[in-house]
Amino acid sequence: MNTPFRTSSPGTVTLTALAGIPEVTPHTPLAPLIAAALERHALALQDDDVLIVCQKIVSKSEACYANLAEVEVSTRAREVAARCLKDPRLVEVILRESAEVIRCEPHVLIVRHRLGLVMANAGVDQSNVADSDSRVLLLPRDPDASAARLRVALSKTLGSSPAVVITDTFGRPWRRGVCGTAIGAAGLVTLWDRRGERDRFGRELKVTQVAVADGIAAAATLLMGEAAEGRPVVFARGLLPAYRHETARASDLLRPVAEDLFR
Amino acid sequence: MNTPFRTSSPGTVTLTALAGIPEVTPHTPLAPLIAAALERHALALQDDDVLIVCQKIVSKSEACYANLAEVEVSTRAREVAARCLKDPRLVEVILRESAEVIRCEPHVLIVRHRLGLVMANAGVDQSNVADSDSRVLLLPRDPDASAARLRVALSKTLGSSPAVVITDTFGRPWRRGVCGTAIGAAGLVTLWDRRGERDRFGRELKVTQVAVADGIAAAATLLMGEAAEGRPVVFARGLLPAYRHETARASDLLRPVAEDLFR
Repeated sequence: MNTPFRTSSPGTVTLTALAGIPEVTPHTPLAPLIAAALERHALALQDDDVLIVCQKIVSKSEACYANLAEVEVSTRAREVAARCLKDPRLVEVILRESAEVIRCEPHVLIVRHRLGLVMANAGVDQSNVADSDSRVLLLPRDPDASAARLRVALSKTLGSSPAVVITDTFGRPWRRGVCGTAIGAAGLVTLWDRRGERDRFGRELKVTQVAVADGIAAAATLLMGEAAEGRPVVFARGLLPAYRHETARASDLLRPVAEDLFR
Repeated sequence: MNTPFRTSSPGTVTLTALAGIPEVTPHTPLAPLIAAALERHALALQDDDVLIVCQKIVSKSEACYANLAEVEVSTRAREVAARCLKDPRLVEVILRESAEVIRCEPHVLIVRHRLGLVMANAGVDQSNVADSDSRVLLLPRDPDASAARLRVALSKTLGSSPAVVITDTFGRPWRRGVCGTAIGAAGLVTLWDRRGERDRFGRELKVTQVAVADGIAAAATLLMGEAAEGRPVVFARGLLPAYRHETARASDLLRPVAEDLFR
């Protein structure tokens, strides 16, 4: 649980999608690409800025691929694939990334990822991946660590230490459509615990914890697009210092399995 | 399902929390309050702007209160209250607002609201409500209609027809903290159906529907705060024309019960 530097929401926030970031190949460092994009937009990075980065380019930079041709399909993956009507090799990759299958229905495979994220297909992705018939993209191994590393790299490249949020898009029970969600974060409040504060009439707020990093991810995803836009990084100014924090992580947003009412 | 006016995400978006909106009393029209706040911020409203409005002030303006002292508690409400350890009068109000109880556990009552929204306590709210020991605030009767009416009223008051999103905060399974969510909308894409479009490598997007209005609601809620800030309206510029739409509604975001895997 995080308490922000200053307990007040920000007043004005500007989000800018950074254009012109090239296709990311394995082991390409992201900080120089982002620095060049910021320069093209005449944006001088400050410590109080936030960079929101799509998971896909983080995974590509970290070479988190699985080659479908090399996958040995287990009996269990074959059974699950028969139920969800997906490629057994893809299902094998998904199961290797997962701690638990939450729902398996025709065309639906929702799992608890080994990171704790409950999501479709363990985040294993074929869209916007070159050669997606033979290889698929996995989530970063430790997205909170990826965010922290990118923060350090940006600081070395540009002299400023912005907050970083790594996003992926998640479907939701009960609601249609996907929303951007924070899977990694560094430098900002992720879960703002406002319990104990009082409302305008002096009544204590009882259950108000705000998923700040998810809100930022959802906002930025509106600008990233999902198809051919190629705008995997969004720059946000105005969110900090209200939401500045040094040790909070996106994994703070995971509800413990013991509190899960929807398994 | 909505297709936007222009199939491309916006490049820059600015969100501004409107300060100084006074406490809303029953039957107070919101358009003049919003017009005055925009003027204080020197913001000239345009058709391509979006106003994001917290459900609380819409409900207060529509006098959507229930008086706890006048509630007759049914046997069923008493049983449910005993299980979730809540005030039986409050539970009676919640059940009257609901079509179905989804989960009832100690300190947790998640229902399907008569509007179709799956949410805690049917959105019945005691925080930031004057006299909250005796009366509670309900959701607007038809939030999509409220959004459409506010759009018309703003057009009459200010000569511009912005999009309007009405938000409430929702908890989520598997993740901690609440996120802003769209419960009413007028004038913009709510669910962007991108199926059939192609990614950067020509691969067809199969499941990409984007919950645009929820993303906007989540972003704006970061600026509204939940406690004593008193900033229930956020002004957004830059989202339209990309997301302009005349007939889309927030209820388009409800997943049909037949597709629900988490009851």
